[in-house]
Amino acid sequence: MSTPTGSPNAAALTRDASRHRARDDSPPGAPAAAKQDAAALISRFQAVRNTTTGLCRHLEAEDYVGQSMPDASPAKWHLAHTSWFFEEFILQRAIGGYRFYDERFRYLFNSYYNMVGPMHARPQRGLLTRPTVREVLNYRAHVDERMSRLLARADRHAHLAALALGLNHEQQHQELLLTDIKHLFSCNPLLPACMPDKARTRLGAPPLAYRALEGGLADIGHPDGGFCFDNELPRHRTWIEPFQLANRPVTNAEFAEFVRCDGYRKPALWLSDGWVAVQSGQWQRPLYWSESLDHEFTLAGLRDIDPEAPVCHVSYYEADAFARWAQARLPSEQEWECAAATLSPAGAAAGNFLEAGNLHPVPAGTQSVSGPASAVAGQDDSHPPTLVQMLGDVWEWTRSPYVPYPGFRPLEGALGEYNGKFMVNQLVLRGGSCATPASHIRTTYRNFFPPAARWQFSGLRLARDG
Amino acid sequence: MSTPTGSPNAAALTRDASRHRARDDSPPGAPAAAKQDAAALISRFQAVRNTTTGLCRHLEAEDYVGQSMPDASPAKWHLAHTSWFFEEFILQRAIGGYRFYDERFRYLFNSYYNMVGPMHARPQRGLLTRPTVREVLNYRAHVDERMSRLLARADRHAHLAALALGLNHEQQHQELLLTDIKHLFSCNPLLPACMPDKARTRLGAPPLAYRALEGGLADIGHPDGGFCFDNELPRHRTWIEPFQLANRPVTNAEFAEFVRCDGYRKPALWLSDGWVAVQSGQWQRPLYWSESLDHEFTLAGLRDIDPEAPVCHVSYYEADAFARWAQARLPSEQEWECAAATLSPAGAAAGNFLEAGNLHPVPAGTQSVSGPASAVAGQDDSHPPTLVQMLGDVWEWTRSPYVPYPGFRPLEGALGEYNGKFMVNQLVLRGGSCATPASHIRTTYRNFFPPAARWQFSGLRLARDG
Amino acid sequence: MSTPTGSPNAAALTRDASRHRARDDSPPGAPAAAKQDAAALISRFQAVRNTTTGLCRHLEAEDYVGQSMPDASPAKWHLAHTSWFFEEFILQRAIGGYRFYDERFRYLFNSYYNMVGPMHARPQRGLLTRPTVREVLNYRAHVDERMSRLLARADRHAHLAALALGLNHEQQHQELLLTDIKHLFSCNPLLPACMPDKARTRLGAPPLAYRALEGGLADIGHPDGGFCFDNELPRHRTWIEPFQLANRPVTNAEFAEFVRCDGYRKPALWLSDGWVAVQSGQWQRPLYWSESLDHEFTLAGLRDIDPEAPVCHVSYYEADAFARWAQARLPSEQEWECAAATLSPAGAAAGNFLEAGNLHPVPAGTQSVSGPASAVAGQDDSHPPTLVQMLGDVWEWTRSPYVPYPGFRPLEGALGEYNGKFMVNQLVLRGGSCATPASHIRTTYRNFFPPAARWQFSGLRLARDG
Amino acid sequence: MSTPTGSPNAAALTRDASRHRARDDSPPGAPAAAKQDAAALISRFQAVRNTTTGLCRHLEAEDYVGQSMPDASPAKWHLAHTSWFFEEFILQRAIGGYRFYDERFRYLFNSYYNMVGPMHARPQRGLLTRPTVREVLNYRAHVDERMSRLLARADRHAHLAALALGLNHEQQHQELLLTDIKHLFSCNPLLPACMPDKARTRLGAPPLAYRALEGGLADIGHPDGGFCFDNELPRHRTWIEPFQLANRPVTNAEFAEFVRCDGYRKPALWLSDGWVAVQSGQWQRPLYWSESLDHEFTLAGLRDIDPEAPVCHVSYYEADAFARWAQARLPSEQEWECAAATLSPAGAAAGNFLEAGNLHPVPAGTQSVSGPASAVAGQDDSHPPTLVQMLGDVWEWTRSPYVPYPGFRPLEGALGEYNGKFMVNQLVLRGGSCATPASHIRTTYRNFFPPAARWQFSGLRLARDG
Repeated sequence: MSTPTGSPNAAALTRDASRHRARDDSPPGAPAAAKQDAAALISRFQAVRNTTTGLCRHLEAEDYVGQSMPDASPAKWHLAHTSWFFEEFILQRAIGGYRFYDERFRYLFNSYYNMVGPMHARPQRGLLTRPTVREVLNYRAHVDERMSRLLARADRHAHLAALALGLNHEQQHQELLLTDIKHLFSCNPLLPACMPDKARTRLGAPPLAYRALEGGLADIGHPDGGFCFDNELPRHRTWIEPFQLANRPVTNAEFAEFVRCDGYRKPALWLSDGWVAVQSGQWQRPLYWSESLDHEFTLAGLRDIDPEAPVCHVSYYEADAFARWAQARLPSEQEWECAAATLSPAGAAAGNFLEAGNLHPVPAGTQSVSGPASAVAGQDDSHPPTLVQMLGDVWEWTRSPYVPYPGFRPLEGALGEYNGKFMVNQLVLRGGSCATPASHIRTTYRNFFPPAARWQFSGLRLARDG
Repeated sequence: MSTPTGSPNAAALTRDASRHRARDDSPPGAPAAAKQDAAALISRFQAVRNTTTGLCRHLEAEDYVGQSMPDASPAKWHLAHTSWFFEEFILQRAIGGYRFYDERFRYLFNSYYNMVGPMHARPQRGLLTRPTVREVLNYRAHVDERMSRLLARADRHAHLAALALGLNHEQQHQELLLTDIKHLFSCNPLLPACMPDKARTRLGAPPLAYRALEGGLADIGHPDGGFCFDNELPRHRTWIEPFQLANRPVTNAEFAEFVRCDGYRKPALWLSDGWVAVQSGQWQRPLYWSESLDHEFTLAGLRDIDPEAPVCHVSYYEADAFARWAQARLPSEQEWECAAATLSPAGAAAGNFLEAGNLHPVPAGTQSVSGPASAVAGQDDSHPPTLVQMLGDVWEWTRSPYVPYPGFRPLEGALGEYNGKFMVNQLVLRGGSCATPASHIRTTYRNFFPPAARWQFSGLRLARDG
Repeated sequence: MSTPTGSPNAAALTRDASRHRARDDSPPGAPAAAKQDAAALISRFQAVRNTTTGLCRHLEAEDYVGQSMPDASPAKWHLAHTSWFFEEFILQRAIGGYRFYDERFRYLFNSYYNMVGPMHARPQRGLLTRPTVREVLNYRAHVDERMSRLLARADRHAHLAALALGLNHEQQHQELLLTDIKHLFSCNPLLPACMPDKARTRLGAPPLAYRALEGGLADIGHPDGGFCFDNELPRHRTWIEPFQLANRPVTNAEFAEFVRCDGYRKPALWLSDGWVAVQSGQWQRPLYWSESLDHEFTLAGLRDIDPEAPVCHVSYYEADAFARWAQARLPSEQEWECAAATLSPAGAAAGNFLEAGNLHPVPAGTQSVSGPASAVAGQDDSHPPTLVQMLGDVWEWTRSPYVPYPGFRPLEGALGEYNGKFMVNQLVLRGGSCATPASHIRTTYRNFFPPAARWQFSGLRLARDG
Repeated sequence: MSTPTGSPNAAALTRDASRHRARDDSPPGAPAAAKQDAAALISRFQAVRNTTTGLCRHLEAEDYVGQSMPDASPAKWHLAHTSWFFEEFILQRAIGGYRFYDERFRYLFNSYYNMVGPMHARPQRGLLTRPTVREVLNYRAHVDERMSRLLARADRHAHLAALALGLNHEQQHQELLLTDIKHLFSCNPLLPACMPDKARTRLGAPPLAYRALEGGLADIGHPDGGFCFDNELPRHRTWIEPFQLANRPVTNAEFAEFVRCDGYRKPALWLSDGWVAVQSGQWQRPLYWSESLDHEFTLAGLRDIDPEAPVCHVSYYEADAFARWAQARLPSEQEWECAAATLSPAGAAAGNFLEAGNLHPVPAGTQSVSGPASAVAGQDDSHPPTLVQMLGDVWEWTRSPYVPYPGFRPLEGALGEYNGKFMVNQLVLRGGSCATPASHIRTTYRNFFPPAARWQFSGLRLARDG
């Protein structure tokens, strides 16, 4: 998502409303449980909303204003835009004669929905010193209050699909809020922290090993049941050649070796556009690394680089060049999803997510979740290597351009602008990161960014032909 | 090819040298025929080389100099660069102690081969008023003479793969030379022509119809035998869902309707990056069309737009927006190739190519090649519509990003920079155009350009889910 | 001052220290009065410092952060930089072993003094969300405290020249703070106000009339006595041809007529570079005017345009084009100063300055100060028209490029970077504005900005050859 | 002249036609001499026109096309534009029902006369490969023929002012043609020459010495008699303080010392805008100098730098920085003109001009023209140093912004766009260069360029306060 994105497959939701109920809603035929259910819904709504504001608890009023580049948005804007989303796509539709909190906010906090109307220019979001943080929080409170009243109503079921969308949308912005504030703070010579640093245990990454997978005809995309974005649909068949996937992401130590071997100075390692980016951006190492290669800027301020942790804040171009240097390649998104399907339920659920509070990748040892410890530390002939850190820690660049799945249909109306119109010039990332809420991610999730983007928690995992 | 590209799969050629002999070479075990064969080779070499200079026969010396944008090159540069290619990749390697015609030309006429050495900046090619056209033609003559001597030698077989590459490379530049001079001339208010206009017969396009194809597991990529570029390899399996493909490209009349329906003013029809291109480039119609939508600039000067001819000079963004407006989509390159595999041999060979001398798309009626005439004009229930103009006339944008085929291996050495390093941020086009030499194109051929490129002979053919 | 500028002629101050005592200091030979005198100095210091913070009293914390263009700075930066100035140029020099409040601030809040050291990039000042406003106010308090202690010391006399400089420097930033916040707020669709609007009396401007002046050999530049900037020195002789100067600045009504007469669409009225600015900036009226020409954005929010008030927020290019259209011209700075020398003391002292609290130009009638009322309203043959509004209301563009006076010497050391290095590509403005402190302006004062600058309170007064 | 400029004061010419006759015309009351006179006029016209084409005699057709930067124009464009000038401002006005050679040329070859009509975009002149050189030469021949017929007519007197203007205009373009082709060739790694190199005698520059001048009230501007441009008028009084002027321009040896002393790395030496230019343009030495400081690119190709010759191809910023480093300053244009008024007639007439064929500055020794040889080589107390090289060799940057003289009136009509509209953001240069025709220059001549321009033959002469 080069821009805050992600929309539920509303069309599909309409076609098959029941699938979302498992997670998001009470069965329509259960009026008796309605009161309890409403409380649960409201509770979930409030939990997501409070998480967003909670992420800001160490920010000063001034910090909410800054915009360090056109791709990033001020924290205040994230707080307001996520509220705008509920007003525009739920409250307005659900409540007859709904009066907007402030008509002008419809313009100010529209991100990119041309069908909703004109909008404030993205690169100028940092000039909006008003409304103030206090006023934006009032706006949020107002929306929360109206939403809570709506969710308590008997006819709320009509809006549950949009509600699920709105909450997932807000979760996406939780991550963006963090990556944007991190970038902003990195531009300040004072290098402020937006969270306290905490003690860390030094843990190790398992030795690099490849897991062989057979490929063949595979089903890709979100299966029936539970919420998903429209770009994960429809589930469809694809042919995959045999391949091998690394057991874990590339580590800082490995990437530092690439830097020391002049990886950033050898055009033969780079895609042509990547080499242009290296030169025009004067890239010499991952974003946020110190020149000495031993410190990095984090949300907790400047810290030692942990050599065993997954490398992050690399662009697709850097991930691709590293893989070429390592005589490997990046996996396709189909390969990645195919491999992820082999994870145990525990493996697919565990991970270093937002909730862990690290807000930074950690070595695999801290969160190994499946298989015996010996398999993590190494492997023998009889055990294929365990895939670790598939979810959480770092988004993993794939070699797959972000394109529609066969049979993809954009949503009706303005929400159709959500995912579909970005399906060019971007690459797919998989697996979520240390800044992704655990309840937001899944193995079919498709994130996407342009190949030069570096400010997300983006790393890589190697692959090879089988 | 955003830059003049295309390299033979030299690695594959080394692995299986025999496959190229069918077309390009005599069998190694036939010394008796060697003399004759050498003559044939030299003859083919000269034919391609002469075609290039022949394209310039209406140019004045001044015309060879201009460069109208960084993506385009002066005619003189094309003439020199294609000669540089033979010097650098054949003569130097084949002839011990080879002395370059002019050492400085290695720098001036290197396009993008970092491994060969540094090069003159691409956007500044238009400042090279020297060497003069005459000097460049002398350079060409020198290279031709050395190549002819080499081709007459007994050990020439070692260089045949590179020779095939060099000739195909030169054919690519024949097309680029034309598109670049067309763009240059279009910037001149005098609107010069680089060929005489000739009488045209008004012919019709068949009614739009869709051909249903079944999909399934299909083999994609170049089969064994004959020359191909490395990006067409390896031939591999892929899964294709049932789909429908239009019987012919979109016509000027159809595209004009899109323009009149405010297609260029409705953001909902466009990819997000496409809409940015529309606004920043102030696009309002295809490149080279007059504001009145009834004239267009061609290589023969300003002419009436033929409503029945395929539209061309549209970008991927425009092709994609048109398809959305028409409630269709672009085909994937796999779909396109799968459909092209159904063409009769005659259908795959015929077409409006460079040799026809039109240097502009013409309506299907002029070159219908397969099936009875009635099928071209329409269809009944018992006959699926005939696919026409799959080859020639206009390159057809596909929805497929230009990525490596599974198992793709770039060539060794500097030639490895040829295709592989451009596999990001570009889309695949298929089928060749009215400026493509007939002997250069085939149904597995993958051309590629960035989504905003408009100066090639690029059009589109619609597709739908099956 | 395209950048906050203005330095006292410190060299001159050293040469003739006594001249500044009249205004700024007690005579060195008067130890008895020292205590009282110190109190007065401290009091003046505090008054200026408090004025600065007082200007911010309606700002929210968020408002201090925004930077709407590279030429402007955030309010917070102004508050900190003016304190940095006292630390760098007084405290550090006066106090042995002085420890800076925060060493990092030396980098963050250095504006353009290369000799002091490297500095934070100007266009990135808006990214400094830290230090917070509170921290900057603490910094100010610390500097105020250290300065007060210094000023109470017996040996303070050595630093009085720098003190006068620092206070005048701070006054310049008072005006810049206002123009910068005005520009920032104008970029916000909410159009916030940074002061309450107040009732206005509609007053009239006198009819346009020209005052004839004889010219001849004139002395230009600051005379002995009192503080001045180095660019006002040395006082020197110049030859002035007879000329005529308008009795008052051009009004909004007059400028609106120029707009309605297509003044912005006739290249013949514009300097060549001005016409480029009109087209690239899409200028169609003064900055801050509504398209309807009847509203303008002010520090008190959107208001009706007062037709009788002086036009402001026009660039030099617009002032020059208006004058050409009006068959007049702009005065030279020598002509302006020569005319200003004829003002009565009362006329030179009165005016619509910062202290009046309007922070916007007002019609002449509100502040006419010299001559009988009849002379303001019109004139007969026997009375030359009275010059009004020479000081205050709007800075008046002159036709004079900002160049050194003959014999000009830049200050020694880093302060030499203050004025001298800007003496190219800028034009001189005279007279101060409604945002200039009254005690800061004088008739020899030379302000300067590039010809395309519009965000200052800049207007014009017409002149003609005599 | 940032753009090819310079117009005779046509208004003045109309007011006082006789003044031009001395040089340009026969006395109106001399019908007997008319035939002879017409022949002389035609002869002068042809001489100037032939000089222009003669400058191109070593150019290839391709060389006429290139445009290396927006400020420069192709040689072909210069040839056509100077002809356009005669068509537009003389033939069209003199000949009833005049039919233009090609109506489209009015658009293509209009430089910047908005009142004449729209024009081809300046930065795109290099794309005009047509009309060809041959066609442009035909155009020139046509204009020459029509002009010759006009000049033979009895009523030609009405057009003599415009004729003088057209010829001076063409002479300006002779110099621009050379500086533009030099810049173009310097961008070509082959470093072509546009003239043969010739043997040079090593001669010396006199030791640097300052000539004291008294200043006072001086008359500046063109006196009555002979042709001049409008920007040299009216002659007017000005006050000049006593000053000193260097006897000769700064030499290459002196400037090399500045480079070696890190002059390009010390911001304290530079104007603020100059320092920005140094950094953004990565300036490290004069344009065309080799990194080793011992070679320079010239119109005769790469040559050794002559240490005794005047430095050239420096911008105003570099001239200003050098002067500051040398503890001197640049003269004002008034000072320069005042000093030039002391030259002997021989001194004012001699110099290294276009006609000498050097097309490069030479040391003073080669052309010392006034005073005994001993005065050139040195001086004793009794002889003030002789001013040499005031005219020719290099244009000398003055510290004077290009502004109108008091009482300046632009010409009526389109010719009024000639000089007046450039009177901002440029600095005056004086004295002519090695590429200026001798008959074109005079001591009151005001050339002008923006402060960053380097591609003219621009050097400097130091001055000091008296």
